[in-house]
Formats: sequence, structure tokens, C-alpha cells
Amino acid sequence: MYKLITTDGKAKRGVFSTPHGDIQTPVFMNVGTAAAIKGAVATSDLEEINTEVMLCNTYHLHVRPGDEIVKKLGGLHRFTNWKKPILTDSGGFQVYSLAKLRNIKEEGVTFNSHIDGRKIFMGPEESMTIQSNLASTIAMAFDECPPAKAERSYIEKSVERTYRWLIRCRDKINELNNMEDTINKEQFLFGINQGGVIDDIRIDHAKRISELDLPGYAVGGLAVGESHEEMYHILDVTVPHLPQNKPTYLMGVGTPANILEAVDRGIDFFDCVYPSRNGRHGQVYTNRGKLNIKNKKYELDDSPIAEDCGCPVCKRYTRAYIRHLMKADEMLGLRFCVLHNLWFYNNMMREIREAIEEHRFTEYKKMRLQGFEENK
Amino acid sequence: MYKLITTDGKAKRGVFSTPHGDIQTPVFMNVGTAAAIKGAVATSDLEEINTEVMLCNTYHLHVRPGDEIVKKLGGLHRFTNWKKPILTDSGGFQVYSLAKLRNIKEEGVTFNSHIDGRKIFMGPEESMTIQSNLASTIAMAFDECPPAKAERSYIEKSVERTYRWLIRCRDKINELNNMEDTINKEQFLFGINQGGVIDDIRIDHAKRISELDLPGYAVGGLAVGESHEEMYHILDVTVPHLPQNKPTYLMGVGTPANILEAVDRGIDFFDCVYPSRNGRHGQVYTNRGKLNIKNKKYELDDSPIAEDCGCPVCKRYTRAYIRHLMKADEMLGLRFCVLHNLWFYNNMMREIREAIEEHRFTEYKKMRLQGFEENK
Repeated sequence: MYKLITTDGKAKRGVFSTPHGDIQTPVFMNVGTAAAIKGAVATSDLEEINTEVMLCNTYHLHVRPGDEIVKKLGGLHRFTNWKKPILTDSGGFQVYSLAKLRNIKEEGVTFNSHIDGRKIFMGPEESMTIQSNLASTIAMAFDECPPAKAERSYIEKSVERTYRWLIRCRDKINELNNMEDTINKEQFLFGINQGGVIDDIRIDHAKRISELDLPGYAVGGLAVGESHEEMYHILDVTVPHLPQNKPTYLMGVGTPANILEAVDRGIDFFDCVYPSRNGRHGQVYTNRGKLNIKNKKYELDDSPIAEDCGCPVCKRYTRAYIRHLMKADEMLGLRFCVLHNLWFYNNMMREIREAIEEHRFTEYKKMRLQGFEENK
Repeated sequence: MYKLITTDGKAKRGVFSTPHGDIQTPVFMNVGTAAAIKGAVATSDLEEINTEVMLCNTYHLHVRPGDEIVKKLGGLHRFTNWKKPILTDSGGFQVYSLAKLRNIKEEGVTFNSHIDGRKIFMGPEESMTIQSNLASTIAMAFDECPPAKAERSYIEKSVERTYRWLIRCRDKINELNNMEDTINKEQFLFGINQGGVIDDIRIDHAKRISELDLPGYAVGGLAVGESHEEMYHILDVTVPHLPQNKPTYLMGVGTPANILEAVDRGIDFFDCVYPSRNGRHGQVYTNRGKLNIKNKKYELDDSPIAEDCGCPVCKRYTRAYIRHLMKADEMLGLRFCVLHNLWFYNNMMREIREAIEEHRFTEYKKMRLQGFEENK
């Protein structure tokens, strides 16, 4: 499914073929938590800003509207009217980050819904079943994401269990993909590497999951409190032990600079809430760094957010107007900032792909990193 | 500026030519209070849903971002990137409905800003100056909107003052339209008929303002607490005393049924917050009446809001998806409902215009009114 077109250093330029179309990598997946991008961005807008993959959250959709409802409605693609690939996470991360009470056992995790407190059990089989009901293009394995700074003994035990869970996920998705009423019978399973910031655990786990010959692999459990340098180091030591001829996905990362650094270390897929979350707070990205559109200095500024930006917002609207919308609590301001930011991320990925193809990624990365510092 | 194309009974089919393009009447103006339609609807969306006129609120824009800021930015058209006509109200209605403390004198009204409590004075000259700064296509006269059920003696005095204010508005707009740095030197002033629900005061006032030969006339002070029947009666007795060869505007009205009845009594222009406000609460319009999209019965309903609707939302999204978005507090749900509702209103006006042209407005009105009752 994955074809490596070319490399530039460790940076990979690939294409991942799916039943919902090709994904050109490196790619940034736009996060639509509850089957919608926050900030009133519609799937029709995503087409306009060159989104390649939408990411939806299994946990959120399981609690509302319910994955069985989505299945009855024909799966996420029909539900959201988004025809291109969708990746669903496993629900695991939300279990650890949102749920107040949880109990992790070999079978899985018991926790309380953050919506109504109702007790929910989720293990590898449950996560796979939910993701199969959602009928995403790519399903993620159900893992445990231990705190970055957990004790070695805890991480060792956790990673062992995550490995056993991955086997169960693989067996379950094979079973589900062969069932008659499954919507997407070609759903892909990506395994997830864990191991905190401990090199040998990461490497050993990467080697073992690679042997399972899954369609893709993620590096999980990063960007959860460790430093950027620790994260880059873990990528340096781990990615070489994941198959180069499969997509690699760095989960939940990150800033534009993080993405440039991770591409340089062989990562294909990214996702992050930054562009939408920051946009909702009026923080907008430019090649000269982020700016806060609510700042008084933009009150009379009739230039677009970024002069060199081709997004639908910059083509029509000014900083002064968007500032006014944000100050007046008009939802439209949030929508504009989110739309601009997603376009910025998607466009940077397009530029990254071109730079790798033309074997000038190092220069491109240097130029962008310098630019991002300008407004600091 | 106004050309009466044809009539069907008292219903008028006209075209009002402005420096920002022609307005085909009867028309529904889409309310963009603070220079934006609430519910994350952009001016680019308005083009897609065949909006002819955007209405903005003088009072809101005066307090935020400030009309002088808008003037420096080139006026509302440049500020919002909306090229078609814009009507601004006078600010009077918000003074009476929003401001807590106010003091009405011959000169004008002193009141406290609802944002920061700051004392503001607004009279005819101030309202005209603000609207000239905003550079709308049509400015509304500064009037007093007395409570529907006020005493006759109060309404008589109020209407007299409103008449004197109209003279001052006319003189001021003439002065402003002749000033060198005025953005829209062809800004039109519409007079406003008042008189509560007292026939002879309404009629006398209508006759007197008609003599001023302004570009258009509104009927104000209705839909403020009186019954629909009282409102229709006032239109029956008043509209015949306003010039037929000028646009007539029923301010702040109303439901689709109200609009049909008012068109039948010779009204050209309408505006109302219902489609956007109801949309934000999940109330969506169809030719078979309003429905509440949050209703449980739409959980698995994969039909559009209305099968016979050509709006951008109904073309792509289902009731089940929109219900989910509303239940999950996703802004996108609000945007979809508002967009659908505005399209519904705009489209009904298009159908009304066709029906008048083809001299079958009575039938059309009957059919629509019957339809609206179906889901009650």
C-alpha cells in the first residue's frame, strides 16, 4: 500500500494507497474530534484547503453519537460526507487523559465517561470493534500511553502489555474485516511504538512490532511532557527500527518546527490540535511565526493574516476584520483563524513534499525554522 | 431608483437600483449585526445562498469596533468584503431595547453602552454621521420606537418628534453626502413610519413623511408586542399612504407567514433575526413548517433537512449528522442550521417574486401557509 517515492537524508516522500484514495506523505491529518473540525469548519471547507486525511476520535464518537449509530448511518465517510481517508485513534489516549477514574487490567481499561460518568470498558477487541463500526480507513491499535517520566519498571510492564494488546488488535481486525456486515472490509491497522523516553525499550518494542508486518506504525507516547530534545532523540533511535517501506506516524505532534524536525527523522504522518485550538484563541500561523490577531496593533491593519498565504481567508479578509470578529465574540472569527491555520499546516506539508522530491529539504527546513523565529 | 415591474393585488414586484447593484424585491435582508452573520457564516457564504442585502446594526458597530475605525478601513463593504448592498439601521431600536438607562430629549437620546456602561449620546445627526462613516448603501432615519401599547398622548408626542428628527436626518445626510471624504456619497435615506397601533396617527404620519420624497419608507414599531392581526391591520391602513413607486420596508419582520402576509399588503423589504437565531437553537425551516433538528427522532435520519431544498447544507449533509453536531455542541451544527435557514428565507423571496411576476401570488401564499401548518 505504501510506495516510497524518494528520500532526502532520512526524510521520506511516499504515497499510501487506500480504498478512499491516495495519501501523499509527509502529511498532516486535520483533527475532527467528534466527526467535525472545531471552529465551524465543514468537510466542504476541508476540500478547499487541500486536506488529505481527517482524524476522528474513537472515544468521543463512542460516547456520542455512539459508534453503532454511525455504523447504521453507513460509517464516518457517509456520516460526515468526507470522501478521502479518515484515521481513527484507538480511544486509548482519551481514556488516559480525560477519564477521571480508570482501572487498567490485562483485559483492558474500565473508566467513567467524561460526559455522563457512565462506566465503560474498553480493551483491544472493543476498540477494534468501535473503529470497525466507524469504518475509518486506518484504525489505530489500542495501547497504553504511560506518562513520559514513569518508572522504568512500570514502562517495561506497560509496553509488554501493549504488545500483547497489539496481537489481540490484529486478530480482532482480521476477524472484523472478514465479517459480512463490516462497512470497510479493508480497514488498515497501524501498530504503536511505546517506551517512554527509554531508548532500549523503544528500540526493542519497535523491532518486535515491525515483525508483525502491519500496514503502518506510529510512534506514540511522545509530546506528553518530555522536552523537544528528548522527543527528537527518541525518534533518532527508534525510527530506524521501524520499516522504511511502511508509513510512520508521530502521534499528536506538533508545532510546525516539530514537524520539520520529525520529517527529517523519517516521519510520514502527523496530527495535532494546535492549528484548530490555537486558531480558536486567535493565534494564527505565518512563515514569520505565530501572531495574536486580537492584538490592538491589528485594529487598522487591512492586510491579510499573511501576505504570502493562498488560503480562502487571506484571499478575502483583513487582519482588522478578523480582529474585530474575535473581539466581538463572533464565531466567524474562530472559523477564519482555524481555516487559515489548517491551510498553513496543509500547505507546509505540500512544500515539504516538494522539497524532499527536489532533494533540498535541509535548506527548506532551515529557511522555515529561521522564519518562525522572526516574530518571537 | 425604484422601478415597479408589476403588481399582483397589492403585492409589488420591484427593483431598487443602488451604487452597489440592483435589489430585486420583495427581498429579505440577512442580518449581520456586528458586520457578520451570527453562526460563523461568512460573506462568501452569503454569495452562495443568494443573499441580496446584508443588514448591519449601527449601534453595535458604533460601540465595536467603532464607526470611525470602519471609515478608516474604507467602510463596511471593504471591511466585510461584501460587494452587494448593505442597509444599516439607525441605532434607535438598540437604544430602546438594549440600553438600560436612557433619557430621550428633543436633541436625541443619552444612554449607557451595553458593553462597558460608557455614556453615549445619539441624535439624528449622530446616527447619520455614524451611518455615513459605515458607508452603507441605505441609511435608516433615527426615530423613536415607542412600546406598541403606549398611551395615545405619548405616541402622538413621540411621532411628532420622530417627524422633526426625520427632517434633521434628511438635512444631515444631504450635508454628509456632499462632503469630500464621505465614502458613499450616494447613501440613501429611508424614512420610518411610526404610530403604534393607532390608525389615524399612522396614516397622518405616513402622509407627512411621504411628502418629503425620500428614496424609501419603512414601517417601524411593529412586531414589538402587538398581535399579528394588529400588525396586518396597521399595514392594511398605512401602506396605501406610502408611495407605491418607492420601496416599502417592514422592519424586523418576521416569520415566513408574516412575510407572505406583508408582501400581500405591499411590502418590499424585510429583515429579521429569526432564521439566524432559530438556527442557532437547532430550529430549521421547511415548507412543511419548522422542525427541531435536536429531536431524538432524527438520530438515524439520513435525509437532508428538507428534500426539496437546494441549499449547500441540504446538498451534502443529513439530519442525523446535523443533530449529532448540535448535541455535541459543535459550532458547525449552528453554522449549518443558520445557513439553511437563510437560504430558506432567500429562496422563499425568490419564489414570491416569481409568483408576483406570474400573477399567482395568492395561490402561492395559500400553498405555503398550508404547508407551514403541516408540522405544527
